[in-house]
Amino acid sequence: MQNFEYCNKTKIIFGKGTEKQAGSETAQYAKKVLLHHSGGSAVRSGLIGRIKDSLKDAGVEWAELTGVQPNPRLSLVKEGVNIVKKEKIEMILAVGGGSAIDSSKAIAVGAVNDGDLWDFFDRKKSADKALPVGVVLTIPAAGSESSISSVITNEEGPWKRGINFPCIRPVFAIMNPELTYSLPPYQTACGITDMMAHIMERYFTKEPNVGLTDELCEGTLRTIIRNARKIFSGGENNYDARAEIMWAGSIAHNGLLDTGRIGDWASHALDHELSALFELAHGAGLAIIFPAWLKYNIKEDTKRLARFAEKVWGVDGSFYDCEQAALEGVLRMENFFHSIGMPIRFAEANLDPSRIGEMAKRAVHFGPIGNYRKLDEKDAVAIYKLAAGEV
Amino acid sequence: MQNFEYCNKTKIIFGKGTEKQAGSETAQYAKKVLLHHSGGSAVRSGLIGRIKDSLKDAGVEWAELTGVQPNPRLSLVKEGVNIVKKEKIEMILAVGGGSAIDSSKAIAVGAVNDGDLWDFFDRKKSADKALPVGVVLTIPAAGSESSISSVITNEEGPWKRGINFPCIRPVFAIMNPELTYSLPPYQTACGITDMMAHIMERYFTKEPNVGLTDELCEGTLRTIIRNARKIFSGGENNYDARAEIMWAGSIAHNGLLDTGRIGDWASHALDHELSALFELAHGAGLAIIFPAWLKYNIKEDTKRLARFAEKVWGVDGSFYDCEQAALEGVLRMENFFHSIGMPIRFAEANLDPSRIGEMAKRAVHFGPIGNYRKLDEKDAVAIYKLAAGEV
Repeated sequence: MQNFEYCNKTKIIFGKGTEKQAGSETAQYAKKVLLHHSGGSAVRSGLIGRIKDSLKDAGVEWAELTGVQPNPRLSLVKEGVNIVKKEKIEMILAVGGGSAIDSSKAIAVGAVNDGDLWDFFDRKKSADKALPVGVVLTIPAAGSESSISSVITNEEGPWKRGINFPCIRPVFAIMNPELTYSLPPYQTACGITDMMAHIMERYFTKEPNVGLTDELCEGTLRTIIRNARKIFSGGENNYDARAEIMWAGSIAHNGLLDTGRIGDWASHALDHELSALFELAHGAGLAIIFPAWLKYNIKEDTKRLARFAEKVWGVDGSFYDCEQAALEGVLRMENFFHSIGMPIRFAEANLDPSRIGEMAKRAVHFGPIGNYRKLDEKDAVAIYKLAAGEV
Repeated sequence: MQNFEYCNKTKIIFGKGTEKQAGSETAQYAKKVLLHHSGGSAVRSGLIGRIKDSLKDAGVEWAELTGVQPNPRLSLVKEGVNIVKKEKIEMILAVGGGSAIDSSKAIAVGAVNDGDLWDFFDRKKSADKALPVGVVLTIPAAGSESSISSVITNEEGPWKRGINFPCIRPVFAIMNPELTYSLPPYQTACGITDMMAHIMERYFTKEPNVGLTDELCEGTLRTIIRNARKIFSGGENNYDARAEIMWAGSIAHNGLLDTGRIGDWASHALDHELSALFELAHGAGLAIIFPAWLKYNIKEDTKRLARFAEKVWGVDGSFYDCEQAALEGVLRMENFFHSIGMPIRFAEANLDPSRIGEMAKRAVHFGPIGNYRKLDEKDAVAIYKLAAGEV
């Protein structure tokens, strides 16, 4: 086990009706807040209205910035920074999923750090201060509600890049599973895939003695799979299934499952290129990339892959050799992704395989990716080809 | 799943050599600290010397209060409060296990709240402020290093009572598994039993839809059992086994495994009377009480007990009916406790069964105990009798 530091200060407020606490929680940090969201379903459902009522009751003023979209844009972030500076805003309140939260975190950094904001994403600078960010979560997926990450797309590239700074960890996250009943099935499935990927990125480590976090990873994955099946078998409005998924999404990415180990994260890097070039939802891209990454690594610590197959996918290892068991696990994972409506090959998401070379080059822009196994451009090409079904 | 709030702000600093950071972490909160410990093995091993060097390097002054013992005493706490007030101390630094930490937390409350300190333990008052407490952990057991609990013994009763206030959660916890190599086997075993009990108190809930925390509880218990076997098979100095146990002890009691559910805690109340009257170590008392509590509740949600037997103790439920499977789980738990040198009956710890009536009366002093099943005085007598082997 490796030495580690762990501290997660986000206050989680979880359960039915908790959005009513948005005002009183915000009032502990700010007199004026930037309310940041898509302007779509959260307005139509009345959620934004209820949050404004709650802010009003708590004596908090707000400005509003709508228009957040999947793969949130740098241009909107810059607009947010200008509003915050002009209107002397002290906090950002994100309403939505990972896109609204990541956009809010980037605004929070830009508001109190001078210079070109993209430099932080381009790994030229690091930030140790930001405005506080609060969250009302409506899409369980990214785990951004209690993480130190933000991923933003710069339209000029297009480049999709992430930052990881403790100062952008949200101060509170309000999580009401009822708000997720109305999510379209595709979005629910993308979220489920995203949180599973967050756990798998951590699970595949070369650190040998991390039995506790292995157990926690496997248990969280089994919980997600079991409850996903409930939701996709007519349980859209099953409170407990939605609640398990929502809480699992936070635990997947709050840092706990990292402790003592080094995660991989190559699949995220490979997917960033898919979503940057093809506007594919992050979860859908991961459903395409992860099985290919596993197949490419089937001989890389095969025992760990076989254990993953047995503990998470119920493959009985005693009927197989390790490599066969590992492969059986990957096939069951593909079946599961299909069963919730996710694509698992390029063609199913209308991705153009002729751009594989270009994507591979971009994916290793900062050098080799991944820790479980370092991948160079040639490896990236091979994994994209597996994902395209070309091998 | 029940609504919940969860926030744990303790900064965990985990791994080899981390005690060197005691000074720099303390310096973030205080110029002068009360160094509080037993005065025994931590001095002889040189740990206290290394911590003093670290404080000196960070420019932090200290006063010292030694003499903490298992089941920490109110009289020593009061002495600590006097020193803190007289010497204008701004923080308490606990070095040791649950006793040193709980004693430090009580001092931290007494230092900034007027009136009779015991009133907080006697449930007459609640505290919302305390001095910051830092921890260098040497005995993984109580989970006090990141919990909101402190349990103190008032010699005048004797009464053993606990408080649970967010303001006493330690600001940092330094955890170096190497410091636990030299623990006597009995103390290692008591710690293992204590952390298992913390998880089982939470596991046995009547809340039906808490699959995620069930999985996390079961995985943490399996990890503790597996690594305990390593330590007790010649692995006293096995870093990774010690590390898994140490981290599991924190996770067992940091609040995560509570989320969405209501724990039981009757076994802790029943054990408090054992340790108050007979000076028995907390872990040893729990090894005696918990199997008896399970047997007494074997018909109370038998399916959950059977699941516990299968998931934690490897009982194959298909060979048994639920009640038989549950009982087989309890027997395996008893075997396990025996295998690490814990007592499981009154006689093995020289406890006097003639005092069962008195203990039962004291255990329900504040009313019925437990949430899985409310227990009155008669139930307490029955469980103590099972623990005494009288039925």
